[in-house]
Amino acid sequence: MSQGKTKPRIMPGFMELLPSEQILFNKMYDTIREVYESFGFMPLDTPVLELSEVLLAKAGGETEKQIYRFTKGDTDMAMRFDLTVPLARYVAQHAGELTFPFKRYQMSKVYRGERPQKGRFREFYQCDIDIIGSEELDLVYDAEIPAIIYNIFKKLDFGKFTIRLNNRKVLNGFFDSLDLGGSISDILRIIDKMEKIGTSNVLSELKALGIDEDRSDKILKFITSDGNTDAKLTRLKTLGIDSEVFNEGIAELEQVAEYMRMFGIDEDYFEIDLTIARGLDYYTGTVYETVLDEHREFGSVCSGGRYDDLTGYYTSKKMPGIGISIGLTRLFSQLKESGLIASQKKSLVKALIAPMQCSSAYALRAADMLRSSGIPTEVYYADKGFKHKMKYADKLGIPYVVIIGTDEEAAGTVTVKDMAAGEQTTVSIENITKVIR
Amino acid sequence: MSQGKTKPRIMPGFMELLPSEQILFNKMYDTIREVYESFGFMPLDTPVLELSEVLLAKAGGETEKQIYRFTKGDTDMAMRFDLTVPLARYVAQHAGELTFPFKRYQMSKVYRGERPQKGRFREFYQCDIDIIGSEELDLVYDAEIPAIIYNIFKKLDFGKFTIRLNNRKVLNGFFDSLDLGGSISDILRIIDKMEKIGTSNVLSELKALGIDEDRSDKILKFITSDGNTDAKLTRLKTLGIDSEVFNEGIAELEQVAEYMRMFGIDEDYFEIDLTIARGLDYYTGTVYETVLDEHREFGSVCSGGRYDDLTGYYTSKKMPGIGISIGLTRLFSQLKESGLIASQKKSLVKALIAPMQCSSAYALRAADMLRSSGIPTEVYYADKGFKHKMKYADKLGIPYVVIIGTDEEAAGTVTVKDMAAGEQTTVSIENITKVIR
Repeated sequence: MSQGKTKPRIMPGFMELLPSEQILFNKMYDTIREVYESFGFMPLDTPVLELSEVLLAKAGGETEKQIYRFTKGDTDMAMRFDLTVPLARYVAQHAGELTFPFKRYQMSKVYRGERPQKGRFREFYQCDIDIIGSEELDLVYDAEIPAIIYNIFKKLDFGKFTIRLNNRKVLNGFFDSLDLGGSISDILRIIDKMEKIGTSNVLSELKALGIDEDRSDKILKFITSDGNTDAKLTRLKTLGIDSEVFNEGIAELEQVAEYMRMFGIDEDYFEIDLTIARGLDYYTGTVYETVLDEHREFGSVCSGGRYDDLTGYYTSKKMPGIGISIGLTRLFSQLKESGLIASQKKSLVKALIAPMQCSSAYALRAADMLRSSGIPTEVYYADKGFKHKMKYADKLGIPYVVIIGTDEEAAGTVTVKDMAAGEQTTVSIENITKVIR
Repeated sequence: MSQGKTKPRIMPGFMELLPSEQILFNKMYDTIREVYESFGFMPLDTPVLELSEVLLAKAGGETEKQIYRFTKGDTDMAMRFDLTVPLARYVAQHAGELTFPFKRYQMSKVYRGERPQKGRFREFYQCDIDIIGSEELDLVYDAEIPAIIYNIFKKLDFGKFTIRLNNRKVLNGFFDSLDLGGSISDILRIIDKMEKIGTSNVLSELKALGIDEDRSDKILKFITSDGNTDAKLTRLKTLGIDSEVFNEGIAELEQVAEYMRMFGIDEDYFEIDLTIARGLDYYTGTVYETVLDEHREFGSVCSGGRYDDLTGYYTSKKMPGIGISIGLTRLFSQLKESGLIASQKKSLVKALIAPMQCSSAYALRAADMLRSSGIPTEVYYADKGFKHKMKYADKLGIPYVVIIGTDEEAAGTVTVKDMAAGEQTTVSIENITKVIR
């Protein structure tokens, strides 16, 4: 603290952007929000701080260790670590005031006090949608969710992507049929890491669990099936697995795939992947992951699935649901590092008014006309030279500069400079929006 | 915790809305954001959590008591209590990467651990803009700020409002001329409460400060001037106050009022009000408050002003600025309580597709056509009767229901029901957007 000044800085693990980057981030945020709303999802904005008793009703282990939890006055409170627990609390609390199926989106920051490391954030945006049924929820929603993923990533335009699809019943039924006892959730956790750690590591981890070679072999055969969606389904049906749960899962997968085609999802953009289990304990049916084909190293950029019981910790009403989450902070940071997004736009402004000795009233009239037509406009008021004003527009990447001098004012015109083309046009002030639009 | 269930609830002082209310809240939020962007302000999104050392460099007294501050690991951190301190930190930290004048908006939640009471929130949105100059900042920005307030409250459409304008130099100069010694900031604080506590209470508080009747009288005369803007300015100039600061303040007020007229602000919507001081110590020039004329009991709904030195705690660079803040959570809550906003819309959805025994593919095609035209559309998939589907649309206030049965599918048509008018039209599926737009 030299000379009594505090060094301005933020904590590690928190993402803070320059305005030009923030513009790009907001554009992605707005695109996701727009698609969510176009499918009928309603906005929700729960508090960042909740009572620890409520927020941690379900939590345990790693989650509890990572949480920002503290006491103020007599109150033990914590910052939310995801948007799912607050949703469960909200739906249980307001069930009588909501219309079911209840479709909500929430796109907000969540907090995890992890040890900071590359790609891990302590504050990050989750962009969640969930559809919550009262007692039941139609299977068609299992296909609406990937239709939404499809729409979003088409619009975000980061190249080809693949929505990977599985069903927990297929996994559970298969493992039941192997008669492995109580270790199914451990096996699922290992399988879930297939892409990350590779076949041989999966095999040795399975061995460590006490699974014999014969069964490990069957497990690997089961999850490494090739071919297209229909071929995979046919193969699964001919495996001769004697399990009702397994067959139910296959039937669901088949139906969901059929619905997905009806939703207009290009066959090239989805696939059944039996290695996907999703770590969370509460998924019970369809599960998803999404990868950018040219950036598989990003991991899944959008994941989720179906669960039987969202609100069990708060109410005895049965609330099945389905949902996904996009970890926008992480995705943005990965895209930025890979050079996939570059901030050409340093400002949202489309036109800079540069008055040169003209009356302020005339310049402000031009600005007002542009803003009224929805064109973000800035006026460079300061009494600086022409070059200074052009440099300002150039630095911020503002595409048009409107030059107004005494000549223009006398003639009722403005001179519009197209910064990219380097061309100038003088038009009547009434036509200013036509040149710039 | 009967039967092992945790009671779902949130803490007092936190606002959480039903979806229908959240839609209205977001509409206000989006309107404010849109106007901010149209004037060339750039988005910023700073962390909610900052190092206590950085966040509290300036704070003290009440602020420090109210803060949510805690330690995790070795780190002493706190939740932001406003957006101004993070802005100061940000500008000092990134000065070399920003273009000045730097115009930013931030519309985010801030946290104050106050004792909960009516109208006070512990978590609330502030919608801030600031314009930061490097070394200097043109006076025209003092008029651009009220032009933005004018645009926003015109668009929000809550009736007539008044932007009240003052200049701290006028106040400081006047009080200097009274030769009152060191108590000026105390007097300003008392004057600031004029509308809240009334003349007699102001007088007795001034007396308690040791100010004699003669001077109290002069103070009251000074601040209770009547007449329009020009009359007030003329009166101030003829008071014969021997103070350079005072005269500078008058000249600024006069110039700002003139600029405001150029910005097209209706004369009826602003006034000079010499009682406005704004509590904060750092205002040094123009200050604003905004009241809704028919709801003066709301207090100021948008306040701010000019300051000479934003970043003094972090850097020795001089950064003057000007800014305002709209306390959106408080305003929304006041509007709601007064019945000024009513949630007619329970959903963002404009069209509900109700398939009746038709193929899902055909129904989904209709939905896709509507969404592609920017019309938020929901499909009621569940195999329920016609009445059930109509009731769902009615409950959510969805204006159009698209009924598709086997007849419609065979003929390539859809039947659109206008819920408000109660009328049905059958049109070719290609024309579906024309009926609903």
